[in-house]
Amino acid sequence: MKINRQDKLQHLFSPGSVAVIGASNNPGSWGYGIMQSLFNFPGKRIYPVNPSFTDVLGFKAYATISDVPGPVDLAVIVVAAVRVPDILRECVTSGVKTAVIISAGFAETNNEGSKLENEIIEIARQGDICFVGPNTMGHADSNSQVSTFNWTRGEILRGPVALLSQSGNMCMRIIRYGNDTGIGFSKFVSTGNEANLRLEDYLEFLAQDDTTRVITAYIEGLREGRRFFRLARETTLNKPIVVLKSGGTEESAKAIKSHTGALAGSDEVYNAAFMQSGVIRVSDDQELCDVSFALLNQPLPRGNRVAILTMGGGLGAVAAESCEKEGLEIISLDESTLDKLDTYLPPRWSHRNPVDMAGISITENPAMYSSLIALIEDKNVDAIILQAPVGVFNSKRLSEILGFTPEQTKALKESEEKSVELVMDKIEQYDKPIFMVAPFPHINIADSKNSDTSERKRIPVFPNPHRAARVLRHLSWYRSYISSVAGKTSPFA
Amino acid sequence: MKINRQDKLQHLFSPGSVAVIGASNNPGSWGYGIMQSLFNFPGKRIYPVNPSFTDVLGFKAYATISDVPGPVDLAVIVVAAVRVPDILRECVTSGVKTAVIISAGFAETNNEGSKLENEIIEIARQGDICFVGPNTMGHADSNSQVSTFNWTRGEILRGPVALLSQSGNMCMRIIRYGNDTGIGFSKFVSTGNEANLRLEDYLEFLAQDDTTRVITAYIEGLREGRRFFRLARETTLNKPIVVLKSGGTEESAKAIKSHTGALAGSDEVYNAAFMQSGVIRVSDDQELCDVSFALLNQPLPRGNRVAILTMGGGLGAVAAESCEKEGLEIISLDESTLDKLDTYLPPRWSHRNPVDMAGISITENPAMYSSLIALIEDKNVDAIILQAPVGVFNSKRLSEILGFTPEQTKALKESEEKSVELVMDKIEQYDKPIFMVAPFPHINIADSKNSDTSERKRIPVFPNPHRAARVLRHLSWYRSYISSVAGKTSPFA
Repeated sequence: MKINRQDKLQHLFSPGSVAVIGASNNPGSWGYGIMQSLFNFPGKRIYPVNPSFTDVLGFKAYATISDVPGPVDLAVIVVAAVRVPDILRECVTSGVKTAVIISAGFAETNNEGSKLENEIIEIARQGDICFVGPNTMGHADSNSQVSTFNWTRGEILRGPVALLSQSGNMCMRIIRYGNDTGIGFSKFVSTGNEANLRLEDYLEFLAQDDTTRVITAYIEGLREGRRFFRLARETTLNKPIVVLKSGGTEESAKAIKSHTGALAGSDEVYNAAFMQSGVIRVSDDQELCDVSFALLNQPLPRGNRVAILTMGGGLGAVAAESCEKEGLEIISLDESTLDKLDTYLPPRWSHRNPVDMAGISITENPAMYSSLIALIEDKNVDAIILQAPVGVFNSKRLSEILGFTPEQTKALKESEEKSVELVMDKIEQYDKPIFMVAPFPHINIADSKNSDTSERKRIPVFPNPHRAARVLRHLSWYRSYISSVAGKTSPFA
Repeated sequence: MKINRQDKLQHLFSPGSVAVIGASNNPGSWGYGIMQSLFNFPGKRIYPVNPSFTDVLGFKAYATISDVPGPVDLAVIVVAAVRVPDILRECVTSGVKTAVIISAGFAETNNEGSKLENEIIEIARQGDICFVGPNTMGHADSNSQVSTFNWTRGEILRGPVALLSQSGNMCMRIIRYGNDTGIGFSKFVSTGNEANLRLEDYLEFLAQDDTTRVITAYIEGLREGRRFFRLARETTLNKPIVVLKSGGTEESAKAIKSHTGALAGSDEVYNAAFMQSGVIRVSDDQELCDVSFALLNQPLPRGNRVAILTMGGGLGAVAAESCEKEGLEIISLDESTLDKLDTYLPPRWSHRNPVDMAGISITENPAMYSSLIALIEDKNVDAIILQAPVGVFNSKRLSEILGFTPEQTKALKESEEKSVELVMDKIEQYDKPIFMVAPFPHINIADSKNSDTSERKRIPVFPNPHRAARVLRHLSWYRSYISSVAGKTSPFA
């Protein structure tokens, strides 16, 4: 039975065909938006079902699901709640394997809705069909390019992060924000009321999913807490799990009760369980994306001892404060490092950590790279926060600032690439992450839109030191967890 | 003497002529960048001084300051530290009124530097000249369009916010970030070592400056603490002061000592003094800009009771949690409000605060506006956080989503503008601020680049509820301060 359910999930994420029951030609309606989102589904075996239309967005429409020729792996149901039980029965009769029930108006509303929800649970049990929802925004898979959301127009950005969300809107926020910052998603599910498929089912599936390297989740309340934490303990040793859990305050918990009917549970109990199972708990959607990006691109630090390399004393002081507030240590540098820095930097440098390069010019990048490598090589340092001038790691921009000729630009680019290569090698060799804090806060944490085609690891760039310090704390804790439980230094090794 | 100094500051910010001693044609050098920044200075009475050049960036160059024809109100000095005393003496002899000493290598370095600094202090005292710095990145005024920074190319964005910063790089970060989010600056100063002009001098000037409505500052340590807090107590009743103060942790305080030689002082003492003088203390540069924007565009809330209007239950729960963690109250709505909402919203709405509009469609904006106004009118509500669909306050985007014809787009725009007008009127009438949390986090807190030409107040848009809640807490506290001290409801009234 359990294997069966996991097989069904395979059909959910990689269906051979999709029917949309309640498909529509009316812009603004869900049945229209979902049809649009399915445009990129390859093979286009898409069957709109709606007796009011002969075709929907160019696809031949059918009056009922039983009229559809050929097998349907996945039915998306977007009709009024009262009609869902009959529709689901028809799906069972027609041999549909899985369903996504977008419709709302079930247990999250009133007794009437609860009765409807019990009815569809029973239909699914007897009919051997799995479903997402009800009251879900949908699900998507970037590899099969199936999407039952009504807002994923165009191709879905591929990548190694999966997202399970107990809120559809939060799912949308995280996907959009992640995409903007260079994070691609393998699969994402708005889990809705979890009347049939539960967050724990998806988690079990994702743990074995080769396209997923990091699992993230927005959680309001767990229906199978023990199962979740058992799965998490097994999974986090090989795949990081990053969780945003709400309901930690009184009114927030009440809001959750009214949202999906879930009980938020004691925040302390959740916290302890997350820590004991290696789950990284974050406090907002931005942090969720920041941590995921860093996990994929940088090694885990051996400890919490940070060196700061900065272009200005004030920025260094603020960065040090951010680190200390997150429980990180601003360590004393080794004597040999101080000696090296003396040879690289102008005499006015701070002679301590934070290493203030004291107004180093943007033309002095080589000195900056040498200093960076000296810090990586320092045995007291576990991680580095770099606040570099705007041209660092960006020879194009630097050339513009300096008004370089094409030849000069080319030479700068080559020398820059060599330096970056060297820094990246050192990061690998010494197993020490570097986080950059941008000189200008509007710079994104990634410069490339597609995280999947980029083979090369990237240095995360944060708009302020607080965000960098927050991520470092998580990574340091996570390494100590997998190290103490399994003697590992990386989940991916 | 004090009046004299304030007069001198007038010359600093609105000079009739500027000399750049150490001006250069070498891209990447400070002497070159500063000359570029002065391009927008009207009248172009700019005198580069450098014996190595006959002209700099097209301006005739002079060998020494005494060779310059006509009076010089402001001299920018960007030469090696050891040469600064002689240069400053020449400035005095030539009748220069004020100077900006960019050069570093003074008290922030060693005994030698301290001696140099004492020397220029004495020269200025005897010669009756004021100066910014040394070890400063410069200063700028958006009204006179003078800038001695080496990075403010092009016109400086005008606006009512002033910034004093004890770190040049932090000054640059805040200006860039502010400009990006629609905040214009009246004047900004990187105060450097404050050997002559101190932060307190600028503060006294800004308190009387008509172009400045909000004063912001990045502070590492105050040299005249008593004077600062006396000035602040007088000023904050009419002009908000927003301060980012670092040095609250051990290594951060040490870093500050090594940066500008300032003593960070006890964080608790600073905190108490800020609170007693009505100064809003923020924790990072982003918060500084967020608070400034809100102060200029929204009324101060009467208290800390918040209503949340949201397009999704999960978003509502997370927003409620953010508010509660900031000490704000998620209040129970008045019975009459619940009745009104029942008539506006789909039956599945949450029937409580947070008001979850339960998957309201983007075509149902009128219901959303009505609900918003019902919340403004609720006597229990002091402020509103709105998490609305993407089309709200953005009829252009909504028209695109719905594939509207030009006629439909026009009609939507008109109806939308009416609704926005109505909401804005209600905000004024009831004195209750609205903060919007964007459905997608990459939306800026402002949609317009120029904050000065926009007469109309704007609704701040934050990428997550945490930032909105943080700002609300500050505004609520600030109102209670000016109300208890002076019986005022707004600093500007």
